[in-house]
Amino acid sequence: MFLRVPVTRVGRPGGRDDSAAVEEPLEVRLHGKPFAVIMRTPGDDRALAAGFLLSEGVISTTDDLGAVEHCHHPRHPEVHNVVDVYLLGEAATGLAEHLATRRQVLTSSSCGMCGRVSIDSLSQRAPRVDHAWQMDRGVAGSLPLRLREHQGTFEQTGGLHAAALFTPDGQCERAAEDVGRHNAVDKVIGAMLLDDRLPLSGFALVVSGRTSFEILQKAWIAGIGLVCAVSAPSTLAIDVANDAGITLLGFARDGGFNIYAHPERIV
Amino acid sequence: MFLRVPVTRVGRPGGRDDSAAVEEPLEVRLHGKPFAVIMRTPGDDRALAAGFLLSEGVISTTDDLGAVEHCHHPRHPEVHNVVDVYLLGEAATGLAEHLATRRQVLTSSSCGMCGRVSIDSLSQRAPRVDHAWQMDRGVAGSLPLRLREHQGTFEQTGGLHAAALFTPDGQCERAAEDVGRHNAVDKVIGAMLLDDRLPLSGFALVVSGRTSFEILQKAWIAGIGLVCAVSAPSTLAIDVANDAGITLLGFARDGGFNIYAHPERIV
Repeated sequence: MFLRVPVTRVGRPGGRDDSAAVEEPLEVRLHGKPFAVIMRTPGDDRALAAGFLLSEGVISTTDDLGAVEHCHHPRHPEVHNVVDVYLLGEAATGLAEHLATRRQVLTSSSCGMCGRVSIDSLSQRAPRVDHAWQMDRGVAGSLPLRLREHQGTFEQTGGLHAAALFTPDGQCERAAEDVGRHNAVDKVIGAMLLDDRLPLSGFALVVSGRTSFEILQKAWIAGIGLVCAVSAPSTLAIDVANDAGITLLGFARDGGFNIYAHPERIV
Repeated sequence: MFLRVPVTRVGRPGGRDDSAAVEEPLEVRLHGKPFAVIMRTPGDDRALAAGFLLSEGVISTTDDLGAVEHCHHPRHPEVHNVVDVYLLGEAATGLAEHLATRRQVLTSSSCGMCGRVSIDSLSQRAPRVDHAWQMDRGVAGSLPLRLREHQGTFEQTGGLHAAALFTPDGQCERAAEDVGRHNAVDKVIGAMLLDDRLPLSGFALVVSGRTSFEILQKAWIAGIGLVCAVSAPSTLAIDVANDAGITLLGFARDGGFNIYAHPERIV
């Protein structure tokens, strides 16, 4: 499932739009009460909720499942981002405990939950990124290669994700690797936080994989103005970048890249 | 950071061991109380904890951080999988709330937390996978291509992850796609759960990306006997596969693959 999104192509041929995988939050409720929010591609939502609850240990067999249904709001017929699950038997007995031990959901959203709600809750926490530096397109195109210089041979084969902070002239300030994409980003931002160097408004964040809502969220909270990824962005990553004032580059390979948000920082 | 692991190479040259990225759980504590467990590659743990707490909204500046330190146990000098964080000011005021709203940590582990603890807690929930079917090596080698038949053109370009269940003779039973690797797996397992078809002992799970602790955890709980990935496994994925009785294939490309656990199911 994907949407057409506007794109500026640098150093490569192609049209003025591109496909991006749809990412939206799914709120899973237990007996009408918020339990968890999963960032996902819409589709198979009932199956996703059932499989997720199995992995989380909330249910263990089909017998534990009463109903698994999309929430339909009388005034919002388009709503499809909430699934309500009713438990049976022993699973239902443990309901109060499951709800109590669960992390707070992303937002106390209304039934009309959509990507918009996620972004709005973020913008309450972080101001729009608004700083003046620009990056030469040649430097931007070289960022993936510069990132690889900070990865070991093994990591370059795909076993580990990498993230790094670069100055506008392409100097690497920090780099980190991890089996988890989000962890690599948390490591570079956290290292700067420990050194009391936030906000990171003078830096670009480069990541080895794709960009999702969570990667852009982390960049926004840290005040980073440019995010460059070797692979594709999700629709929600693009939405957050547009709202936050972050320049978002994707498919940065072989010296070329696509710009999905705020091209004005690339000169 | 990686370890050498035993490997059986099928359809390709190479030695009897391989490198795997290290994955271990990091427990983040607030004032000595368990707050979250992050599956990560060891290294930069203090930075990871700080960056994670920033993203989670527990802290917002360096001033909120008192101490960030590895937990040292007098009788376990090797312990390095617990980081304790002490908050200051407003962040400390919100401590009780943060702890109350946080999801239960993976395990109520002792200070000697390691991958072993994660696996032990899983084995309390799911029996060892022990069923008799085998898969022809030609069929196994064809699984990535068969998976691609169930992905759209866009998805094949890397924008979405895919997961699918196959019978031992290579027939696709279910397939799903998602921006999240874990979601794609939850979708195929959850769809079978909704159809009351668990345990999935007669199926192989094929995934488009890498395999981590969580992917193997989901397979184990569903009773799946063979997991095949297009890319690399983590050390903890291999450990879980060995303990669970799951055959684990990695780097399945161009007809060849590596076997990281239980090669006896491939004939």
